[in-house]
Amino acid sequence: MTKNELVDQIFLKKSFLCVGLDTDLKLIPKFLLDFEDPIFEFNKKIIDATKDLCVAYKPNIAFYECLGSKGWDSLEKTVKYIPKDIFTIADAKRGDIGNTSKMYAQTFFETYNFDSVTIAPYMGKDSVAPFLEFKDKWAIILALTSNESSKDFQLMKEDGEFLYERVMKTSFEWGNDENIMFVTGATHPEKFQELRALAPSSFFLVPGIGAQGGDLDKVVQFGRNKEIGLLINSSRGIIYAGNDKNFAEKARESALELSNQMKKYF
Amino acid sequence: MTKNELVDQIFLKKSFLCVGLDTDLKLIPKFLLDFEDPIFEFNKKIIDATKDLCVAYKPNIAFYECLGSKGWDSLEKTVKYIPKDIFTIADAKRGDIGNTSKMYAQTFFETYNFDSVTIAPYMGKDSVAPFLEFKDKWAIILALTSNESSKDFQLMKEDGEFLYERVMKTSFEWGNDENIMFVTGATHPEKFQELRALAPSSFFLVPGIGAQGGDLDKVVQFGRNKEIGLLINSSRGIIYAGNDKNFAEKARESALELSNQMKKYF
Repeated sequence: MTKNELVDQIFLKKSFLCVGLDTDLKLIPKFLLDFEDPIFEFNKKIIDATKDLCVAYKPNIAFYECLGSKGWDSLEKTVKYIPKDIFTIADAKRGDIGNTSKMYAQTFFETYNFDSVTIAPYMGKDSVAPFLEFKDKWAIILALTSNESSKDFQLMKEDGEFLYERVMKTSFEWGNDENIMFVTGATHPEKFQELRALAPSSFFLVPGIGAQGGDLDKVVQFGRNKEIGLLINSSRGIIYAGNDKNFAEKARESALELSNQMKKYF
Repeated sequence: MTKNELVDQIFLKKSFLCVGLDTDLKLIPKFLLDFEDPIFEFNKKIIDATKDLCVAYKPNIAFYECLGSKGWDSLEKTVKYIPKDIFTIADAKRGDIGNTSKMYAQTFFETYNFDSVTIAPYMGKDSVAPFLEFKDKWAIILALTSNESSKDFQLMKEDGEFLYERVMKTSFEWGNDENIMFVTGATHPEKFQELRALAPSSFFLVPGIGAQGGDLDKVVQFGRNKEIGLLINSSRGIIYAGNDKNFAEKARESALELSNQMKKYF
């Protein structure tokens, strides 16, 4: 998907919501366990219930991988089921040397046909560049993440520049706002003005709203640009809003609440 | 596997060789493609031909993942086939927030029964700590990697301390030399004295010998400790030494050459 197509969808739906598909056999409604593929069954119902309210879906790959080859089958079916006008993110946080990064890129972009993959930048250019060689595909690079221990290394500072700033600046030597996005956690709302100044026209994937405590209004106030430039992710807060036969309706209500909050920014 | 068990194997075999199973359908001998599971067939033959010469096998997960669920089946069969007294490394470079890291740990330690997983430390403690809760299992943390662009961020410096040094020092707040190892690339031989001083009793997983140009003698001279403390990885140099019916014999010759070089250090 191109940047223009994504922006069009955002303005059409008046939403920049991303629904995180952290689908866990232990947390989905029990009655689904009777289906042949409970994970896919759950995702299908969640997608049906939320697809008019969001512009992206983000399966967290760990939750599929832990089920072995069956989990990968559920993932494949899920990606195929997502409507083509909705942006797909493989939240995989891969990052390796060049020839291996290329394999990962092929996996997610070709085998599974995702639009984007999240990338850990620790190994530098080799971890990212192979992902940028695929047309209309995206690398979403971890910059300042939402978790508590993001401070352990991301706030290391040299010459007045934090590691996450260096990651963002350096990445523009490899790609641009049409093939790179950044992960910037909603748990650092005070940083969004500075993050936006570092990458004025880039999209930010923003986890940390909801369960992790981030504040939507502050993130939008300081982080938006004229194309919005934000994908706000919510996973558990939406998909586990209900835990019974009505789970999909509950998920819709929760997604609707967030997407309604977003309408005022258009 | 415990540290003592690993050290015993090293002194028993007089080898600290790790064979990297970067098994690629495009690179294995053509005749194997007639087998039902060419990847496993290749690995099985490589393992049979090298298991007395090495103390560890390291499947590079990207190469299995790119084949979809079939690849994960090949991986599972491969890990089961590796003799129990040989250390197994899932070269996956995972790293995520706590609940997701826990899923990855379960995947590799329980579903696939690996002894260890490689971890990218960018997200801090959350990326590592969940892996340390499994008895006799290991997190192998990326410190100073072997690739050219390791310098992009790993050499960032604050208060005289490089990022890779901070990663190593900080990780001792989470674990110890019985559940954490570090990835230290053979392409930085001049750094090994300093790396060893930072972690005197830790094991280092050392890629970069062979195809990437690292020098075994220098790494051992500066990097070894009294338990050896090194796992020297070679992937392509061993497994693709031959490309015909005799590929396993060629792989053995190549592994033998490296393991013979190692004998003088005992």
